[in-house]
Amino acid sequence: MPPIKKYLFTPGPAPVPPEVLLEMARPIIHHRTPEFSAILDQARERMQPLMGTSQEVILLASSGSGAMEAAVTNLLKPGDQAVFVDGGKFGERWGRLLSAYGMTGHRIKVEWGQAVRPEQVEEALTAHPESRAVFMQTSETSTCAIHPVARIGGLTRRRDVMLVVDGITSVGVFDQKMDEWGVDALLTGSQKALMLPPGLAMIALSDRALARAKEVNTPKFYFDLLRELRLQRDEHTTAWTPAVSLIAGLNKSLEMILAEGLPAVFARHQLMAEAVRAAAPALGLKLIAPENPAPGVTGLLTPSAIDSGKVVRHMRDVLGVSVQGGQDHMKGKLVRIGHMGYVSPFDMLIAIGALEIALQQAGHHNFEPGAGVAAVQKRIERGV
Amino acid sequence: MPPIKKYLFTPGPAPVPPEVLLEMARPIIHHRTPEFSAILDQARERMQPLMGTSQEVILLASSGSGAMEAAVTNLLKPGDQAVFVDGGKFGERWGRLLSAYGMTGHRIKVEWGQAVRPEQVEEALTAHPESRAVFMQTSETSTCAIHPVARIGGLTRRRDVMLVVDGITSVGVFDQKMDEWGVDALLTGSQKALMLPPGLAMIALSDRALARAKEVNTPKFYFDLLRELRLQRDEHTTAWTPAVSLIAGLNKSLEMILAEGLPAVFARHQLMAEAVRAAAPALGLKLIAPENPAPGVTGLLTPSAIDSGKVVRHMRDVLGVSVQGGQDHMKGKLVRIGHMGYVSPFDMLIAIGALEIALQQAGHHNFEPGAGVAAVQKRIERGV
Repeated sequence: MPPIKKYLFTPGPAPVPPEVLLEMARPIIHHRTPEFSAILDQARERMQPLMGTSQEVILLASSGSGAMEAAVTNLLKPGDQAVFVDGGKFGERWGRLLSAYGMTGHRIKVEWGQAVRPEQVEEALTAHPESRAVFMQTSETSTCAIHPVARIGGLTRRRDVMLVVDGITSVGVFDQKMDEWGVDALLTGSQKALMLPPGLAMIALSDRALARAKEVNTPKFYFDLLRELRLQRDEHTTAWTPAVSLIAGLNKSLEMILAEGLPAVFARHQLMAEAVRAAAPALGLKLIAPENPAPGVTGLLTPSAIDSGKVVRHMRDVLGVSVQGGQDHMKGKLVRIGHMGYVSPFDMLIAIGALEIALQQAGHHNFEPGAGVAAVQKRIERGV
Repeated sequence: MPPIKKYLFTPGPAPVPPEVLLEMARPIIHHRTPEFSAILDQARERMQPLMGTSQEVILLASSGSGAMEAAVTNLLKPGDQAVFVDGGKFGERWGRLLSAYGMTGHRIKVEWGQAVRPEQVEEALTAHPESRAVFMQTSETSTCAIHPVARIGGLTRRRDVMLVVDGITSVGVFDQKMDEWGVDALLTGSQKALMLPPGLAMIALSDRALARAKEVNTPKFYFDLLRELRLQRDEHTTAWTPAVSLIAGLNKSLEMILAEGLPAVFARHQLMAEAVRAAAPALGLKLIAPENPAPGVTGLLTPSAIDSGKVVRHMRDVLGVSVQGGQDHMKGKLVRIGHMGYVSPFDMLIAIGALEIALQQAGHHNFEPGAGVAAVQKRIERGV
C-alpha cells in the first residue's frame, strides 16, 4: 500500500481544489432556473480571458474529445478536405475523426516531441488547396511539446482556411490569444488547468467559423454548436441537460483563477515547467521536447535500459505519487509529469523527489541522490 | 428570498445524497489506473439489475440525450426506416434524432398523458414493414405517463425489428426487465433515480443489437458503442477521458440502492407516486395520465383559470420547493412533481403542502386547506 497521502501529477486529470470539490458537493439545483442561468452565464464569461477571445464560449457535457468531434462535424462537410498536424496521439485523433466523418485529412507527420514548422503547413495547404481547415494542438499532451499556433494562424487567416485548435492542455496554462492569433475554433476540457473533474468541454468559434457552421449540413444532434450557442447566449440555458455540478464547479474554479490573476497563473505554470526541466540534466535524463517544451506537462526520456513504466508504477503504487508514462511507441521510454492547475512550484520537489527514488529502484544510478530536487529548488528560488 | 432550506422535487435533476456528494468530493484519481478500473467495473456491474439485464452496461460522459443519439447512430444506417412513439417531448426527440441522421421515422402520435397501444405499433410496423426498429420511452417525463414496453417487446421480438427504449425516468424507479421484455437497447441518465448530478449516461445492448451495430456504418466517433464496449469490458477503461467523479459517485449511489434492496426501492417509488396521486382529488385537480401514471413523476392539471407556471414559481421562489411546470403546449397547464431517487414518502407532505399554498395564492380555492397533505398522509399510513 502506498502512503495515505497521495499526489496527482498526471497530465490530466489534475488535482481539484477543496474549494471546488465542496462547491460541487453543494445540493444540486434544477437547470431551468434563474439561479442556474446566472451560474452558466458567469462561467461562460469567465472562460473568455482564458481563451483570449471575445467570442461566446459554449459548454458541452462531454470530455474534450466530444468538443473535438463537434469542431469537425460543425465546420466540415463529408467530402471536405483538411490538413491536420499529427505530432502525437491527439494530433492523430484529428485524423481519425476526419476519416470517421467521411472527410479527407491530409496529414503533416511531425516527430514526437517536435513542433510543426509553419513551412510544413504552408506546403500542405499549397499541395492541397481545397483544404477547408487546419486541425492542430496548441500543446500535444502525448509528447509534451507545443506547436506555434500564432504563426500557423498567420497563414490560415490569409486564406479561406479555418484554424481549429485543441487547447486541452494549454487553456489556463499559458496565454491563449484565440482572436489575436486568428484561431477559428478553440476547444478545451475541464480536467486540466481548469481544476475540475473530467466531463465538461468548452469551445469558442470565430465569426468565420460561425458563418461556415451555418452552411455545413453534416449530420449532428448532441454536438450541434449553433443550437447550443443560441440557447446558451440567448436563453441562458443548454440544449440538453447540462452537467450542473461541473458547471457550478467551473464557475468557482474560474473565480479562483481570476483572483490569482492570469499573469500570475501563467508565470506559476512557467516556473513549474522550468523547475522540472532543470531537474533533467541533474538526473542524467533528456527532455523529449527540448526546443519547444509544453508549460503544462514535461516529458523526460528514460535511458534505454530503464523501463519508464516500471518507474511510473513504483512512484504511484509504492510512493503515492502519480505521474504518467509514454503512449504508443513511447511506452516504456517516457515519464510525463503534469503541472497544470491546482499545483504549485513546491509540489515539483515532491514529483522529482519521488522520481529520484523510483529511478534508482529501476536501476538508474547515474546521478547524485538529491541532485534533482536541488535543481528544482534552485530554479524556484530564482523565481519567475 | 425563499427560506434557506430548499427542496428539489423536479423530474430531474433529483436530489443527490450527502454520501454521494462526499464521495464525489474525494480527491480526483487518474483514470488509467487499477484503482479507477475497479470502480468502473463495479459500477457497470451494479447497473445490471437496475436495467434487468445480463448484458454489459456501457457508460458515456454525456447527458441522456447523448445515449439517445448513440442508440440511433449505432443501430441504424442513413436511409433506414424506423417507427417512433411520439407521446411527448422526449418521444418527439427520437423523431428529430432520426431526421438529423438521414433516417425516416414513422411517427405514432400519442396524446400527451396517454400510453401507446400495442395495436398502434403493430399497425405502424405493418404499414412500414421496412422499419428496422421501434424507438420509445418507458416513462415519458413530459407527460408523466408510462408506455407498455413489455407488450411492445412481444411484438418486436417476433420480427426483425429492434426495440430501443429511453428509460431515463424509469431505471431505478420501477422494475426494468430489459432481457425479459425483449428490449434491444435500454438507456438512462445519471440525474434521476440514480441519485447523481447530470453528466453521465448508461446504455446496454442486446445480442441482436450488438450484431446489428457491427453492420452499421453510420459516421460516429465520440459515441461509438462497440469501441466503448470493447474497452470497458476487456480493458476496464474507456475510449475517452471518463467522468471520473460521476462514476465514483455512481458506484456509491448504486451501493446505497442495492443496500436498500431493489424491491424496497421500487415499492418506495410506488408509494410516493400513489401518495401524490391521492392528493389530486383532494385538491380539486385532475391527473394528466390517470390510466397509466408514471411512478417517477406525477402530473397534475391545473384548472383553466390557474396558470401552473405561476404556481411553480411561487413554490420555488417563495416557498423554496422546486417542482416543474408543463412543456410545449402544456405550458401553464401542468404541475409536475418528481419523486425519484433520494426522496422518501414523507417528502411528499412537503411537496403537496407547498402546492396547496401556491394554488391558493394563484386563486384556486376549491379545496379545504390541509386536504392535500391529509390525503398524502393517509396513503403513507396504509403503507406499501
